[in-house]
Amino acid sequence: MGNLLDTIRSPSDLGALTPEQLDALCAEIRAQIIRTVSTNGGHLASNLGVVELTVALHRVFHSPEDRIVWDVGHQTYTHKMLTGRQDRIGTIRTRGGLSGFPNRRESPCDPLTSGHSSTSISSALGISKAKELKGEPGSVVAVIGDGALTGGLAYEGLNNAGRLRRNFIVVLNDNKMSISRNVGSMARYLASIRTKPSYFRIKGNIENVLDHIPGAGKPLHRALTKSKSVLKQILYNSTIFEDMGFYYYGPFDGHDTEKLIEVFTNVKTIRHPVLIHVLTRKGKGYPFAEANPKAFHGISSFDIGTGKPVKFKSGESFSSVFGERLCALAAEDERICAITAAMQEGTGLSKFAERFPNRFFDTGIAEEHAVTFAGGLACGGMLPVFAVYSSFLQRGYDQMIHDIALQGTKVVLAVDRAGIVGEDGETHQGIFDAAYLGTIPGMTVYSPSYYDELQIVLYQALYESKGIAAVRYPRGGQLFRPFDFHGSRKAFDLYGPDEAKIVLVTYGRLFSNACLACLALSRQGIRARILKLNRIIPADPDAVRNAAKADWVFFFEEGFARGGVGERFAFLLQAAGYRGRFELRAINGFVPHQTMPQALDSLGFGAEGMAAKVRSECSR
Amino acid sequence: MGNLLDTIRSPSDLGALTPEQLDALCAEIRAQIIRTVSTNGGHLASNLGVVELTVALHRVFHSPEDRIVWDVGHQTYTHKMLTGRQDRIGTIRTRGGLSGFPNRRESPCDPLTSGHSSTSISSALGISKAKELKGEPGSVVAVIGDGALTGGLAYEGLNNAGRLRRNFIVVLNDNKMSISRNVGSMARYLASIRTKPSYFRIKGNIENVLDHIPGAGKPLHRALTKSKSVLKQILYNSTIFEDMGFYYYGPFDGHDTEKLIEVFTNVKTIRHPVLIHVLTRKGKGYPFAEANPKAFHGISSFDIGTGKPVKFKSGESFSSVFGERLCALAAEDERICAITAAMQEGTGLSKFAERFPNRFFDTGIAEEHAVTFAGGLACGGMLPVFAVYSSFLQRGYDQMIHDIALQGTKVVLAVDRAGIVGEDGETHQGIFDAAYLGTIPGMTVYSPSYYDELQIVLYQALYESKGIAAVRYPRGGQLFRPFDFHGSRKAFDLYGPDEAKIVLVTYGRLFSNACLACLALSRQGIRARILKLNRIIPADPDAVRNAAKADWVFFFEEGFARGGVGERFAFLLQAAGYRGRFELRAINGFVPHQTMPQALDSLGFGAEGMAAKVRSECSR
Repeated sequence: MGNLLDTIRSPSDLGALTPEQLDALCAEIRAQIIRTVSTNGGHLASNLGVVELTVALHRVFHSPEDRIVWDVGHQTYTHKMLTGRQDRIGTIRTRGGLSGFPNRRESPCDPLTSGHSSTSISSALGISKAKELKGEPGSVVAVIGDGALTGGLAYEGLNNAGRLRRNFIVVLNDNKMSISRNVGSMARYLASIRTKPSYFRIKGNIENVLDHIPGAGKPLHRALTKSKSVLKQILYNSTIFEDMGFYYYGPFDGHDTEKLIEVFTNVKTIRHPVLIHVLTRKGKGYPFAEANPKAFHGISSFDIGTGKPVKFKSGESFSSVFGERLCALAAEDERICAITAAMQEGTGLSKFAERFPNRFFDTGIAEEHAVTFAGGLACGGMLPVFAVYSSFLQRGYDQMIHDIALQGTKVVLAVDRAGIVGEDGETHQGIFDAAYLGTIPGMTVYSPSYYDELQIVLYQALYESKGIAAVRYPRGGQLFRPFDFHGSRKAFDLYGPDEAKIVLVTYGRLFSNACLACLALSRQGIRARILKLNRIIPADPDAVRNAAKADWVFFFEEGFARGGVGERFAFLLQAAGYRGRFELRAINGFVPHQTMPQALDSLGFGAEGMAAKVRSECSR
Repeated sequence: MGNLLDTIRSPSDLGALTPEQLDALCAEIRAQIIRTVSTNGGHLASNLGVVELTVALHRVFHSPEDRIVWDVGHQTYTHKMLTGRQDRIGTIRTRGGLSGFPNRRESPCDPLTSGHSSTSISSALGISKAKELKGEPGSVVAVIGDGALTGGLAYEGLNNAGRLRRNFIVVLNDNKMSISRNVGSMARYLASIRTKPSYFRIKGNIENVLDHIPGAGKPLHRALTKSKSVLKQILYNSTIFEDMGFYYYGPFDGHDTEKLIEVFTNVKTIRHPVLIHVLTRKGKGYPFAEANPKAFHGISSFDIGTGKPVKFKSGESFSSVFGERLCALAAEDERICAITAAMQEGTGLSKFAERFPNRFFDTGIAEEHAVTFAGGLACGGMLPVFAVYSSFLQRGYDQMIHDIALQGTKVVLAVDRAGIVGEDGETHQGIFDAAYLGTIPGMTVYSPSYYDELQIVLYQALYESKGIAAVRYPRGGQLFRPFDFHGSRKAFDLYGPDEAKIVLVTYGRLFSNACLACLALSRQGIRARILKLNRIIPADPDAVRNAAKADWVFFFEEGFARGGVGERFAFLLQAAGYRGRFELRAINGFVPHQTMPQALDSLGFGAEGMAAKVRSECSR
């Protein structure tokens, strides 16, 4: 094992391999991916699905002159191994190691840093236009999954690319899944192509025949391909992609390396946008993953022999608590609907989907639609809850303003993965929501620290606040809770000695570390208390007045500083006549991949980091 | 004239009219629209295009039980006249009068308040699902233009609606235009349907024949419509809309009221999503508008007899100055590209498009794509400038973070219509950009007050700042400029007596009113100076230090307060040790339609309002 893979220093080394060696290489890569993910965690099923596809792409296209843009980018492990990063693949998703996604700073073979869905066609079109304007050679290829194709941005990309008059290649990696089974008309449409390829491939056959007529065939094929004649229209039914201006080829077996190499070689010289439809199987080659690709989408470390997770997980998390609570509320209130954008499992909505199928909506990867659709449901008298990861809700910013806030209706956003998410890194950190939600008129935002608080504020968001409201909570589970801290239904809680002149203001998960910091400080004779905000937007005037009594206010915010809750708190303190010191520690830029505790520590949000900040400022 | 229209108190009154009377009514409505817009300004061409369509819709569908969702909503003048607002149509777009867009607070026949593009299908789907869940009767109809269909949200809506198993009607109002000529593959595709309807209508003909076989015809037609048989596939070529799960009917003449009534009546009972393709002519019935629909899209008051504007406009505006300057820079730097999302004219890019066609890109109404595409161009080594209205850039929030800021490449956003826009009202006010742009890491934002400053900061954004940068400027032209104020290349300017202990901090257009306010104050013996921010993000430390020397800081911000520049300035002042008073006047909610000066006055941003604020606070 490993002999062939070790010889691949750059994609150009693939050229020397025979078909048999390429197959052997794929097997080595697959074993390596399973080994790596079993140790580091990561995206397994999707990476196993594109091994042959990636090898074939790099055999035909020469990175970095040719540009391959991977949509989302969680499926680039093979790509990384083939582009000079094989020796570091064991470091993937660990601090200082390779990112689990494409990254411009890692390799010239990664044209873009990415992690969000449906961007590849638009990005690739920009790169292609730049090449054209600069007269640079080389192909541009976008590889997009059928899941990502449900995002409107992908359609906008197709609509704009379809009129190009130069080579532009979109590879549709169709595995019938986003994370769960793919949904919507497009998914059904792709299924119709898969199940009746002959219906769409009459043309392909004719072309194949033509190609084999010596001399005359190729030109005839060309003429036919380019014609818009009635003849052509009769000969075959056009796919939606052809309607959008692309030449369509497929579907092809995505695990047949030789065939893929042949196809890519053929389309490389076509001066026209081309869409190649490739069928792959998520989890290919690892039986546990093939059998349950959803479970092996993004996973923690596991035992290769059994497919079971190494660490026992209680299964309880903010997501699961949210899901349970929403079910309980929905049982009492028939207006409650739940919406997800292809994250049923991740957002804890599986039980809801089972219990209330009529009131559950999976929009596919389409956050804009999910928000506007929720607004429509609310206008129709329902009580919609859109559960979504913080980082992906960024997609629905305009829609929150225009289709919800402006209407004055009640919609609740359940903002999961708020704050640092850890190993997925900079594209997935939920560090902007507290800032961008604040810029929306009439918005109310709650940020619980514990499960019981989540249950309380979800109720408040639904029934005790007006208009658009959000409940934001972190990835994973609750952290340390002092035995003598009791949650409340109030907009804020105070914890610690009443007479303390030092106040730590924080919200959400950081409360745990703030408690530990106060404990450490008190051992050193420094008395500090904590003002914990349960409702972060709008700020509570009493919370501000309370903080204003202190001499020192330290605000710790697990979110982006500019436009965040801390800056606003400073403004309100000043307006309240506060004349003491105010220190804000928040996040000032993108946060790279590492574990969540590592990230919190590095940002100064560990208990010791907080305590040190207070000590150093107060001893000045 | 006016006899019929005056008899229509609600849509149900249409039922009594004969076909001839409906035609006469359309003529009356058309005359009324022309009269109204010639006086108040507004959207002329699009409203003239949908008179018959609107009459036919309201004849068949019964508002408010049936819900009609108009995409964008600028074409709803006829809708307003027919739904009990005829007596107030003369007040449209004026303060306290009717909105130029649908508005929930105006009428139960407006299911949604709207103004942005491509939302109708998603909203209507939400409303339809709510009806289903509540067991309420009534149809839901979304009316969307071919321009709005280039937005990805519309595609996401189609993708989700296509699997419904109940009646759901999308009317595609195809006039071949967004504001300018429509672009992209979808536009070309619609053209192919328009020019070869027979190719797509073989099915329609067969159905027509079947319908006329007494007894057997209808059931046979039904069977055929629902079948997925090979027979059906051979009988006709499916449109893209059928591929997306809709029944497709069309194209129909959108000015043939009787035909439209027949079609709508037929589809009203189909338990399946239906798309009706209607061809209309923008400006229909007013020769000047038919001849130049682009010029008559959104216009100021004009002379009906000549089609000429009533007020002489110099033609110079921030948009035109931007366009001129960008042309000059692009002549020197071949990397500069310009991008618009269907707003070539409005953003001042027409000359650029003419001079540098290879470097000019109109993406259609697709702001997400425009941002990501710009990011791709930048990764390819170009220097892209995306010119876009502040309110519409909200659509690209995630893409600015993920596809530009994260990449660390240089892209410039030319944010037009920043601040109050006036008569278009709450959906179009550019009052959020200073807040949401601030939440993006690495962002630089300039906010010039005058044309010469715009020229300076555009250069700075391109060449003197790193990474993503924005230049924001208001709709229309520059306001009052003191003879002794000279712009600079600095991040801020000071204006007024050095020794003044009162400082007014502001940026952009408000500087003009601040100057007039200081003038008024000085006449009353109050000395104040102005700190004018030219770069608003990131804040300049020297600007903060300068303001910190004062006793009173008044911050005036023509933008949303929460997360805005003013709050952040307060935070920075405090960090700089400022112990004086800080007063912030900014915008706290949506701002309704009225003229720009009316809006500024009502928000306390008129010169007198500013002066009064200073006087009252300082005399406390």
